[in-house]
Amino acid sequence: MGWGDLGAFGEPSKETPNLDQMASEGMLFLDFYTANPLCSPSRAALLTGRLPVRNGFYTTNAHARNAYTPQDIVGGIPDSELLLPELLKKAGYINKIIGKWHLGHRPQFHPLKHGFDEWFGSPNCHFGPFDNRALPNIPVYRDWEMIGRYYEDFKIDLKTGEANLTQIYLQEALDFISKQQASQQPFFLYWAIDATHAPVYASKQFLGTSQRGLYGDAVREIDDSIGKILKHLQKLGISENTFVFFTSDNGAALISAPKQGGSNGRFLCGKQTTFEGGMREPAIAWWPGHIPAGGVSHQLGNVMDLFTTSLSLAGVQPPGDRQIDGIDLLPAILQGKLIDRPIFYYRGNEMMAVRVGLYKAHYWTWSNSWEEYSKGIDFCPGQNVSGVTTHTQEEHTTLPLLFHLGRDPGEKYPLSFASDEYQRAMERISVVVQHHKATMVPGEPQLNVCDKAVMNWSPPGCEKLGKCLKPPKSDPKKCFWPH
Amino acid sequence: MGWGDLGAFGEPSKETPNLDQMASEGMLFLDFYTANPLCSPSRAALLTGRLPVRNGFYTTNAHARNAYTPQDIVGGIPDSELLLPELLKKAGYINKIIGKWHLGHRPQFHPLKHGFDEWFGSPNCHFGPFDNRALPNIPVYRDWEMIGRYYEDFKIDLKTGEANLTQIYLQEALDFISKQQASQQPFFLYWAIDATHAPVYASKQFLGTSQRGLYGDAVREIDDSIGKILKHLQKLGISENTFVFFTSDNGAALISAPKQGGSNGRFLCGKQTTFEGGMREPAIAWWPGHIPAGGVSHQLGNVMDLFTTSLSLAGVQPPGDRQIDGIDLLPAILQGKLIDRPIFYYRGNEMMAVRVGLYKAHYWTWSNSWEEYSKGIDFCPGQNVSGVTTHTQEEHTTLPLLFHLGRDPGEKYPLSFASDEYQRAMERISVVVQHHKATMVPGEPQLNVCDKAVMNWSPPGCEKLGKCLKPPKSDPKKCFWPH
Repeated sequence: MGWGDLGAFGEPSKETPNLDQMASEGMLFLDFYTANPLCSPSRAALLTGRLPVRNGFYTTNAHARNAYTPQDIVGGIPDSELLLPELLKKAGYINKIIGKWHLGHRPQFHPLKHGFDEWFGSPNCHFGPFDNRALPNIPVYRDWEMIGRYYEDFKIDLKTGEANLTQIYLQEALDFISKQQASQQPFFLYWAIDATHAPVYASKQFLGTSQRGLYGDAVREIDDSIGKILKHLQKLGISENTFVFFTSDNGAALISAPKQGGSNGRFLCGKQTTFEGGMREPAIAWWPGHIPAGGVSHQLGNVMDLFTTSLSLAGVQPPGDRQIDGIDLLPAILQGKLIDRPIFYYRGNEMMAVRVGLYKAHYWTWSNSWEEYSKGIDFCPGQNVSGVTTHTQEEHTTLPLLFHLGRDPGEKYPLSFASDEYQRAMERISVVVQHHKATMVPGEPQLNVCDKAVMNWSPPGCEKLGKCLKPPKSDPKKCFWPH
Repeated sequence: MGWGDLGAFGEPSKETPNLDQMASEGMLFLDFYTANPLCSPSRAALLTGRLPVRNGFYTTNAHARNAYTPQDIVGGIPDSELLLPELLKKAGYINKIIGKWHLGHRPQFHPLKHGFDEWFGSPNCHFGPFDNRALPNIPVYRDWEMIGRYYEDFKIDLKTGEANLTQIYLQEALDFISKQQASQQPFFLYWAIDATHAPVYASKQFLGTSQRGLYGDAVREIDDSIGKILKHLQKLGISENTFVFFTSDNGAALISAPKQGGSNGRFLCGKQTTFEGGMREPAIAWWPGHIPAGGVSHQLGNVMDLFTTSLSLAGVQPPGDRQIDGIDLLPAILQGKLIDRPIFYYRGNEMMAVRVGLYKAHYWTWSNSWEEYSKGIDFCPGQNVSGVTTHTQEEHTTLPLLFHLGRDPGEKYPLSFASDEYQRAMERISVVVQHHKATMVPGEPQLNVCDKAVMNWSPPGCEKLGKCLKPPKSDPKKCFWPH
């Protein structure tokens, strides 16, 4: 989902009444970012409070490449990483993930081995259908074991776009919340639904209800579900004890537009890029009785802050033995403070850009290669900013391209290198970047090796279902990451 | 000002608290249009309820050219046109225009000859300063007579951007409203301030207060002023008797970006073009106690509707002897109805596009000429949609380019000519267009002839001020309209 997909953020069809109401009852973040313009690294960052380059969710196979966890990925979340649910557990929390995990699908990476108590969902994207010979269909897990596969037991009709998965995920959420309220045990729910990811789907009752087509139907269903979750919390009388945060893991995938792609508002480009359209996210904090209604924050925020903020809410100290990139947003949320902090825009192993205050400096620019572009793969459809949306990797480390995001949120007008404003801003930014680079200790890259043998051939529980498939011989190779 | 310049429409700096509150107390129109992507024709349409091609505010000097009323224009609003204030007068209204008139500056076009009782403002844009030899500075009028000139008596500092004109216009508005309330006489106030038009200015107290630079300062001052006007109505106890409508006369002038140009959100291109960025406008209706608070309307609206709607509110019949293009929006505003009506996108003498429902068909596309573009004049900076944002006038009358504005508000993905959807939509649209063309009787074009002798050399009142200038010899010529 992208920054511009919500009515509250100016989507011209204004079809998200529940999220808009959530914003009017809570706080809207206008300058909130993901840690990476792609799903797996973004989610790893959210759950560890650390940049992907630290927690291993990146590749060194090539420079500045987006990588994730397709079925043949060998790596996943390292045991050495401390995830939010692991830490919350110490404070008595019961943790559940509903939806897409995406931090590795081999046994050692299972979410229940990394702090979650319950899981309903899948380890990978809902791509498919596959033939179960070259590629297995993606499994759906309940806790430790698979209970079926997408397209087989959990239908997704690619022709009509119909799938009732969001409804299933919603019911799982409501049931979990009810159970926890009944047992009076604190809980962390990571509701990681994926209906706006291609192939986009919606339940029958939402199909055709949006002006925006199938993508809009999916947004409407998510919006409706969130409304139901918030109302459920209120009905159970625990809304004033429950902190809720809504955001996305990357900008809208414009490559899927117009039928399956969302909106990044007036920002440049989309998913896969380190322009604002790739990394600025819709974000809403909601906590009745605590967060002042109708608040708007310009705090520079990041999905990694949800790690630190959640720990702060639970009264748990963040780990002291490692660099944590997330900050505690509570002063911004509860007292309206503005905390000075930079935003780093990474693509794989490269810091492409940094934002300090209203200035954003690009040290590298790249949308995608000419080769990919000539195949019709376009991350910036209809947009072309000369020297900015480049199709070769352009290095600007000596003289970064500088934008003022207040006057120019669309990143169209680089400041003149000769201007006083450029000099003053870059002096400040350079200090931040030098410190960041000098103290950066990259983690072991987890997204370098692919092997068809590690695919979801025989997930735990497959025997009971008669759904075990025979893996091919192991043949590990460097993964190929084109973008 | 553009669609995307208000917080309520997704401007990421969210600096318009008063307009946003006006929207939350009233009704936000998401699909509201101007009648022309340029100032003079748009204003003529607003005040006559008729398309510029009918009321004469267009040119036939060249095909599909934007024209307006610069100082050397010979034409202006014809006596045969009936303006909103002329009609309201019959119902006892006192009418005032504050700000830019722009419907002709020769004596016969004076606003007090066309229904207004009072005027404070100027006949043309605040371009300048001029040397009073080749070109005179623009006069500022109070009612029948000029009381000074821009840059001389009414300062605009182009270096700092400081000018207190919006404050003067605000005070004029508050005083007029107070006076009318005291005399218990109904009033129509046309508050036509121009602070976001280049050269952009703001009062000292607003300079440097916006994240968006000088343009944002101007928006903030307008926002603040509107807040004060609405509060004044409430303080005087007449808010429930006063219908207020906020909108703009064309999309943001992206050619002035980033320093002096606003935002059209995610829409394509800007002022001067018939893409959505040129013609879709921010629009808010406010009438406490009558308009339900927090309403959102997808009614296709147009500035011309303000003519018809105002007459309806005043209980005055619109003229029956001519084609009126505006519709009465009250059923949409008060009862939430959706009235089926098309939107025509004109550029000069050509119908470039039409919107019916969510479909928009382009019969002609053009941004501007290669010649102008190569001089750096760009109405679509950073945007380039192949075959759509063309630099030659492209005719598509046989096979219009069709867009679905729900799925594709940015006009990036023309529908396939071969698709069923294209066929079905064009069948419906063709009927509308055929009817429109068959019944169109263009007015006498007013914007064809230019003559330096008609400039503001010696406006009425200049003798008292010692500000009369000697006009050159009359030398009428065809005006040159490059866009």
